[in-house]
Amino acid sequence: MSFDRLIASIRAKQSPIALGLDPQLKYIPEHITAAAFGRAGAGPEGAAAAFLDFNRGLIDALCDIVPAVKPQAAFYEAWGWQGMRALHDTICYAREKGMFVITDAKRGDIGTTMAAYADAHLGVSTLQGAEFAAFPGDALTVNGYLGSDGIAPAVSLCQRYDKGIFVLVKTSNPSSGELQDRLLDDGREVYRAMGDLCEQWGAGSRGESGYSCVGAVVGATYPRQLTQLRQLMPHTFFLVPGYGAQGGGGADVAGAFDAAGAGAVVNSSRGLMAAWQKEGCPGEDFAGAARREALRMRRDIAEHL
Amino acid sequence: MSFDRLIASIRAKQSPIALGLDPQLKYIPEHITAAAFGRAGAGPEGAAAAFLDFNRGLIDALCDIVPAVKPQAAFYEAWGWQGMRALHDTICYAREKGMFVITDAKRGDIGTTMAAYADAHLGVSTLQGAEFAAFPGDALTVNGYLGSDGIAPAVSLCQRYDKGIFVLVKTSNPSSGELQDRLLDDGREVYRAMGDLCEQWGAGSRGESGYSCVGAVVGATYPRQLTQLRQLMPHTFFLVPGYGAQGGGGADVAGAFDAAGAGAVVNSSRGLMAAWQKEGCPGEDFAGAARREALRMRRDIAEHL
Repeated sequence: MSFDRLIASIRAKQSPIALGLDPQLKYIPEHITAAAFGRAGAGPEGAAAAFLDFNRGLIDALCDIVPAVKPQAAFYEAWGWQGMRALHDTICYAREKGMFVITDAKRGDIGTTMAAYADAHLGVSTLQGAEFAAFPGDALTVNGYLGSDGIAPAVSLCQRYDKGIFVLVKTSNPSSGELQDRLLDDGREVYRAMGDLCEQWGAGSRGESGYSCVGAVVGATYPRQLTQLRQLMPHTFFLVPGYGAQGGGGADVAGAFDAAGAGAVVNSSRGLMAAWQKEGCPGEDFAGAARREALRMRRDIAEHL
Repeated sequence: MSFDRLIASIRAKQSPIALGLDPQLKYIPEHITAAAFGRAGAGPEGAAAAFLDFNRGLIDALCDIVPAVKPQAAFYEAWGWQGMRALHDTICYAREKGMFVITDAKRGDIGTTMAAYADAHLGVSTLQGAEFAAFPGDALTVNGYLGSDGIAPAVSLCQRYDKGIFVLVKTSNPSSGELQDRLLDDGREVYRAMGDLCEQWGAGSRGESGYSCVGAVVGATYPRQLTQLRQLMPHTFFLVPGYGAQGGGGADVAGAFDAAGAGAVVNSSRGLMAAWQKEGCPGEDFAGAARREALRMRRDIAEHL
C-alpha cells in the first residue's frame, strides 16, 4: 500500500530520485564540522551533530525536487547511540519536509526478533499503553536470506501502518553474484528465486498503483538483470542503488521502470552528498551543488524513459 | 584468531554456552521495571534502564559458569537510541566481567557501508586522531547474501583487533529452507554453498585452535545439517541458536562439536532469561533461576558429547 504514497510524490515532483544520506566526516564541509565540534565536542556527539546539520542542509535544498531520502544506518551506527540519535532526528526532519524516508538498514532476523526490528522501523513499541516510534521512517530495507519468518512480521506492520519494505534481490556490488547468480536446479538464479518470493510475500497488499508493500533492491550496475526482473516482478516496486559514484547512469536504470514510467526510485548518495567536492565549488555551496546534480540526474533519467 | 579466546574460556568454564540477552519487558521482573521507571520514567529511557539492570543481574549470576553473552540488537533498537545506549552499556559490563560478547545484529552491506558496520561493532571510528568504539563486542553476526564485498571489510578488522564474525549459514527458524535448502545446479544446497564461502573467507586467519575468525550460525533445530556442516567446515567455529525455547536439546547440538568436544557455542536466550517464569519462582530470584537452568543446560550438553 505504502508505495502508492511514494509513487504519487515521484509523479508530483517528476523525479524518481532518492537522496542517500550516508554521512561520513570526509564529505562534510569544514564550516559545518567546525561549528558542530565547537558546540558538541570533537567526539561522537560532535560527529552526530555534524551529520544532522549536513543532512538538514541537503534536505532543505532538495525537498521540492526529490521525493525520498535513504539514510544508511551503518554510518550513524558507527558513532554509537549518539549517531543513532542523529538517524532518528534526520528521519523526523525529512518527514517534516514531506519526504518519504527509506531507512537503509538491511535488517533480517526471525520471529519475535524480526518483530522487534519491525517495531523499531515500521511500527511502535508499547509501554503502559503509550506508544514509542524508535526510527519512524516510511520503509525499511531487509534481507530475505532467512525466508518468510524474516519477512512476515514486517509485512504485517506495513499493512497496519501504511509502510513498505525493500528486500535485497540483486545487489549492486561486484561480488553480488557469488551467491545471487548461482543457478538453482530448477534453472532459476538465486536472485530470481528471491524475486519470486517477493511477489508471493506482497500478494495480499497491492495498492491502487498495482505495487504491493514488498519492494525489492536491484542494483543499477546490473542493467540486464534489472530489465529482466522488472518483467518478472510486475507488482514489486524497485529501489535502485548504484547510480552515480558506483557507475550506473540513466541508460542503466531505464529498465527498472514500467511502461507508465513508474515502478522504481533511483538512489544517489555520494553523487549528491559530495557533489560540491566533485564540482570543486566552495564547501559553503554544498547544498547548491547537490541541487544542481539532482537536476542533472533527473534530466538524465527522464531522457532514457 | 579471535575464537581462540572464546575456545579457551569455554574450556576453562567447561561450558560451551552463550547467554542470549534479548530483553523484552514481559520477561523482566516487576521489581526491576518499577525501579527503572521510577528512576528514568515509563518511556524509552525507563525501558532501557530496565534492560540494563536485568542484564547486569543475569551477567553477575552467570559470569563464572557461562563464557559468552549474545545481546540481540533488535530488542534494543526497538527502544531507539536510548535502547542502543543500553546495548552499549551491556556490552561493556559483560566484558568487564570477563565474558566474550557476540553482538547479534546480522548486519550485512557492501564496501564502505560494511566497513562502517565493522567499525561500529569490531573496530573504531576516528575523529581528529581520537578513536571511538561504538559497540565494542568481541564478535558480530553477519549476513552473507551480498558475497565477499559484505564480508571482507569485517574480516580485515577481525584480524586487526582479534575479533570474529558469524555468518548466517543454516538458520534455526521453520522457513529457513525456503532459500537455504534450495539445490544449486552443482548439487549443493544454498546453505552448503554459504558454508563453503565461510571456509574460503576464513582461510587466512586460522588461530592455534585451527578455527578462523569467520564463524557460522547453524541452528540447533536442524541437527542433521548441523552434523553435516561440522564435517564440511572443519575451520569454522559455530554459533548454535535454537536450544531451549525453540526446541533444540543436548542431543540436537551434539553434532556441532568436533572430536575434541570444541568447535561450537550454544545459545539460549528465553530459556535462561525467562527461567524464573518457567520455574514459577518469585521474580526476585530471576538470576538464581537462570543459574539453575544454565547448570542444567551445561550437564545436558556434556552428557551428549
